[in-house]
Amino acid sequence: MAKVHIDPITLLHPHPVLLVGTYGEDGKPNLMNVAWGGICCSKPPCVSVSIREATLTYHNILHSKAFTVGIPSRKHVEIADYVGMASGKDHDKFKETGLTVLKSEKVNAPLAAEFPYSLECRLFQHHKLGLHTIFIGEIMGILSDEGVLGESGMPDIEKVQAILYGGFGSGYYYAVGEKLGKAFSVGKDLKPKPSK
Amino acid sequence: MAKVHIDPITLLHPHPVLLVGTYGEDGKPNLMNVAWGGICCSKPPCVSVSIREATLTYHNILHSKAFTVGIPSRKHVEIADYVGMASGKDHDKFKETGLTVLKSEKVNAPLAAEFPYSLECRLFQHHKLGLHTIFIGEIMGILSDEGVLGESGMPDIEKVQAILYGGFGSGYYYAVGEKLGKAFSVGKDLKPKPSK
Repeated sequence: MAKVHIDPITLLHPHPVLLVGTYGEDGKPNLMNVAWGGICCSKPPCVSVSIREATLTYHNILHSKAFTVGIPSRKHVEIADYVGMASGKDHDKFKETGLTVLKSEKVNAPLAAEFPYSLECRLFQHHKLGLHTIFIGEIMGILSDEGVLGESGMPDIEKVQAILYGGFGSGYYYAVGEKLGKAFSVGKDLKPKPSK
Repeated sequence: MAKVHIDPITLLHPHPVLLVGTYGEDGKPNLMNVAWGGICCSKPPCVSVSIREATLTYHNILHSKAFTVGIPSRKHVEIADYVGMASGKDHDKFKETGLTVLKSEKVNAPLAAEFPYSLECRLFQHHKLGLHTIFIGEIMGILSDEGVLGESGMPDIEKVQAILYGGFGSGYYYAVGEKLGKAFSVGKDLKPKPSK
């Protein structure tokens, strides 16, 4: 197939939809929509979120040394998108979206009771990369709806009805589609060609 | 809904499926399946991948100061999973999977011609977090199939037929599902409640 060179840009598929909860210095809870983040360490269990200095969340995390990462369901698409457009500097996004503030029992950060589950994180490291700073949070606890747990006792992506973001080239939020194969299993069907 | 506390673990939905290409000190190309990574900075455009020191890729990146991030299509599910199970220390995963090695024109790293597109990265920063180290790559170029470009001239998640990984609670690879709404748009349908 014909190949084309594309200039460097922040292209990747898919992005998750992460709703980052923080308290301001004044105690006001805020939510931010972050597409750039994900799990980044197993021991200790950590999650990263990349955030610009221009945002309220950037300053809230540095002050409170904590944040939550809420995973929304497909019924929260409008809310997630609204949270991504309005600034906490002049909006109370919890109140405006009708989300219920719960204070995390593990860290000094708020979470929305309506999301299927939220990671409760203490600030572990942060590194300035350029326009964005990557904040690494150690996961100190997870608060989940009982109804989204799968057989393993953990939230299941299908019961969560998790959403994803298409990013460049699309610009849409999507549902999770059909199962394509079990990890650490379907690759066993591949018949490796001799490598020597 | 009833809430439950879950002990800290690397839970998030969804993860991308990133196939990281590197050269060894001996010039041998290798591929690794990384679920923990994503875009992390806009200027310069950067992508992160989190990798354990026990892997060949960890040492390859530190030596070559470069890597590629290939985005697989749904037809590559078996290959992606195989790449996630076999170690480059005793396997030639390009040969065994039948993938074609292309040397990046931008950085000292290989990529698989069959993937819809690959990010070509130079090592920009790396930080030890714990069992995993996060490698930040500056995206120096992107090599894409012409056929997966959308109207914007960039790869479109639907044409790419990108896949995602369900992680804990599921353990399956999934296709991208139905469109749920346009980002920076569908949130305008929300009628914010007065916040004062």
